[in-house]
Amino acid sequence: MLEQLKQDVLKANLDLPRHGLVTFTWGNVSGIDREQGLVVIKPSGIPYEQLKAADLVVVDLEGTVVEGSLRPSSDTPTHLALYRAFAEIGGIVHTHSPWATTWAQAGRGIPPLGTTHADYFHNEIPCTRGLTREEIDRAYELETGNAIIETFTKNGTDPAAMPGVLVSNHAPFCWGKNPDQAVHNAVVLEEVAKMAWHTFQLNPDIEPIDQFLLDKHYMRKHGKNAYYGQK
Amino acid sequence: MLEQLKQDVLKANLDLPRHGLVTFTWGNVSGIDREQGLVVIKPSGIPYEQLKAADLVVVDLEGTVVEGSLRPSSDTPTHLALYRAFAEIGGIVHTHSPWATTWAQAGRGIPPLGTTHADYFHNEIPCTRGLTREEIDRAYELETGNAIIETFTKNGTDPAAMPGVLVSNHAPFCWGKNPDQAVHNAVVLEEVAKMAWHTFQLNPDIEPIDQFLLDKHYMRKHGKNAYYGQK
Amino acid sequence: MLEQLKQDVLKANLDLPRHGLVTFTWGNVSGIDREQGLVVIKPSGIPYEQLKAADLVVVDLEGTVVEGSLRPSSDTPTHLALYRAFAEIGGIVHTHSPWATTWAQAGRGIPPLGTTHADYFHNEIPCTRGLTREEIDRAYELETGNAIIETFTKNGTDPAAMPGVLVSNHAPFCWGKNPDQAVHNAVVLEEVAKMAWHTFQLNPDIEPIDQFLLDKHYMRKHGKNAYYGQK
Amino acid sequence: MLEQLKQDVLKANLDLPRHGLVTFTWGNVSGIDREQGLVVIKPSGIPYEQLKAADLVVVDLEGTVVEGSLRPSSDTPTHLALYRAFAEIGGIVHTHSPWATTWAQAGRGIPPLGTTHADYFHNEIPCTRGLTREEIDRAYELETGNAIIETFTKNGTDPAAMPGVLVSNHAPFCWGKNPDQAVHNAVVLEEVAKMAWHTFQLNPDIEPIDQFLLDKHYMRKHGKNAYYGQK
Repeated sequence: MLEQLKQDVLKANLDLPRHGLVTFTWGNVSGIDREQGLVVIKPSGIPYEQLKAADLVVVDLEGTVVEGSLRPSSDTPTHLALYRAFAEIGGIVHTHSPWATTWAQAGRGIPPLGTTHADYFHNEIPCTRGLTREEIDRAYELETGNAIIETFTKNGTDPAAMPGVLVSNHAPFCWGKNPDQAVHNAVVLEEVAKMAWHTFQLNPDIEPIDQFLLDKHYMRKHGKNAYYGQK
Repeated sequence: MLEQLKQDVLKANLDLPRHGLVTFTWGNVSGIDREQGLVVIKPSGIPYEQLKAADLVVVDLEGTVVEGSLRPSSDTPTHLALYRAFAEIGGIVHTHSPWATTWAQAGRGIPPLGTTHADYFHNEIPCTRGLTREEIDRAYELETGNAIIETFTKNGTDPAAMPGVLVSNHAPFCWGKNPDQAVHNAVVLEEVAKMAWHTFQLNPDIEPIDQFLLDKHYMRKHGKNAYYGQK
Repeated sequence: MLEQLKQDVLKANLDLPRHGLVTFTWGNVSGIDREQGLVVIKPSGIPYEQLKAADLVVVDLEGTVVEGSLRPSSDTPTHLALYRAFAEIGGIVHTHSPWATTWAQAGRGIPPLGTTHADYFHNEIPCTRGLTREEIDRAYELETGNAIIETFTKNGTDPAAMPGVLVSNHAPFCWGKNPDQAVHNAVVLEEVAKMAWHTFQLNPDIEPIDQFLLDKHYMRKHGKNAYYGQK
Repeated sequence: MLEQLKQDVLKANLDLPRHGLVTFTWGNVSGIDREQGLVVIKPSGIPYEQLKAADLVVVDLEGTVVEGSLRPSSDTPTHLALYRAFAEIGGIVHTHSPWATTWAQAGRGIPPLGTTHADYFHNEIPCTRGLTREEIDRAYELETGNAIIETFTKNGTDPAAMPGVLVSNHAPFCWGKNPDQAVHNAVVLEEVAKMAWHTFQLNPDIEPIDQFLLDKHYMRKHGKNAYYGQK
């Protein structure tokens, strides 16, 4: 079942080490078939160099395993919460990529400091609040997803125009219309996080770029008047 | 048409990922045939691993497409403004290479802190002013080029002795007598930006090197009494 | 003798350059056969690209060479002190990996700033006190081991839940249930040290993560209720 | 003539890009035959990927070309000054490797902050004073060598126990008993410079390690009681 989606999710997972986003097994990608309401996700703890399409696990949106003999990623409840809340996304990636994780560990969102940021993220990349002891005890991975959703709901942020988030003390999640786009955004987040970090070392009081420059660059690549790339 | 120039522009574009200057499609190189007044430039958004000479776009100095079925780089108006203003340059490169972009995001020029800088850039590498909302709304990429030209005109800087610039909040542009030299200078800028950044962390009050040391090193490699390299 | 252990120790040593943990010969891995009380260790100063299983040296727990024509690593007395004191460990690795060494040179332990740390190290990664002149004169490598053991004894730290340490002014030692796990932990330490360093630059006053988040992540991967990975 | 030395100098030059010490042609290695008083050195500005043994230039200690059709490195007078002054050295390397160059640009010597430093450099790695305008005008490369020699003479430093130096505002020179050892020391200097830089960011007031620890580690690898490596 879901053979094409499995191929897409497999490729997206294998792209993580290729882009230098993961150490060992510290990352996972999933993709969703919205019609069937089924999610394909990496199994937990399997090294990328051994991963095959047949190892991928199919779960429904409540987390019941529908196909596969391996345990799904321990982060599966976070993925599912995001798929349930953000109707427009088709793929999710979680890594501990070092630059984005640095900002997550500092508990700080990444303000837009240049047009590289603006090309992909239409404002500050947010950082969640920390989880409470009770949330962690009850359902850690589910509550991680809920904290992300709360961050977006509270600020009225559109997940389509802000395809990533930093989970406080932990690491980033990114998404996109499919697994490949999710990984693409994770690569961009890492690069943006790296350059923002270095910019702050040069000027700790740096201010975000002008809103009209931010809008201009985001709109050059997104929306109906986009003119970057080919038609 | 312009087959040799296309080969040169293709090679220069492919050198960008080889030198680690680009992520995804974040960069473009162009070259000019001054006799015919025609510019060869990378098409917008095409991945480097797929790029072929036949994909390159030929435009005149006003931006009219003369040959090619793809859209030229969205940064084409910036390239053309520079070719019109700086008569001695034959190739231009734009990237979001991380170290130079860090300085651009901080809105700071890079002062000459060592002989590596002096070997290629005969003074502080300047950073443009930010664009106004009106400039961005009217003709963003053209005005980016105009802001660069303004920076050089205002300071009386010779583009032949200062083959690069940082566009504030954005990223660097570099140039040279041909596309290959432009990329060469982009590699040097990145290395110089990296070492200057680290030097400032060691000593935030560092002063530029002596003018006579700057002149000595620049002249060792440039001008009629240069003695670096082979005759 | 000990052919399987030699193969394991050889592979673990060769993994050091593969993971970017060593320059030249700056590292060594050993493994122990607890039943026979024998340790297999890298010979001193032999380049990794030349290293063969037959070059490895077998020593007993007092340091007497039992097999091998080469001199064992000069750090052998440190390894042996740790094997004698920490009964549950089966492999030890020493490197001068740059991020961990940076913390060691600063004489600072690495506080837990995120879940990557918590997944492997169940608290602050400690740094030893400096050695006295007398200790260095008497038996430098042995006293290095004793200083590590003192650090763990004084704080009541369980070496199984804290599989690494920073030796002040020097560099890290890591361990695990076998040589492969020791190297695995050395890779994690390097990544954790890198991200902690960057987090401190972003916020010099950063506090450790909540103890309940630290416990949650450590227990996700370790202990009888662990649910990360496959059964 | 000097075929073996040419092979050694060629290999040492090719090791520079292999170890990541050079961008483009920013580096050169030489070696000396003390009996004949002849030096083999890289030609100026030739890319490493094209360099052949037959391209190397043979000069005497006064700089007269004895063999070779290419111009020797523009830094040749610096090399020759060092060979004349430091009788025990057999090979010299100059690069603009970024971490060492960062310290040179800041005009600061690198204090011994850990045992990695102590294993190779028996004290602070010195930085020369800046050259005067008159020195630069008169004989820039020769005076660069003289400033290095002055630094060692003034402090009574033994070049055999301090196989490298930072030239203020410029970059490092390293040496050794032969070209291979010179490159080896250049690699170590780069690693030591990197770790010292990061240590200072963690603690700007860090003090050098104890003299007895410095001596112990240096003597473990050097001198008649050395016990690192094989006999």
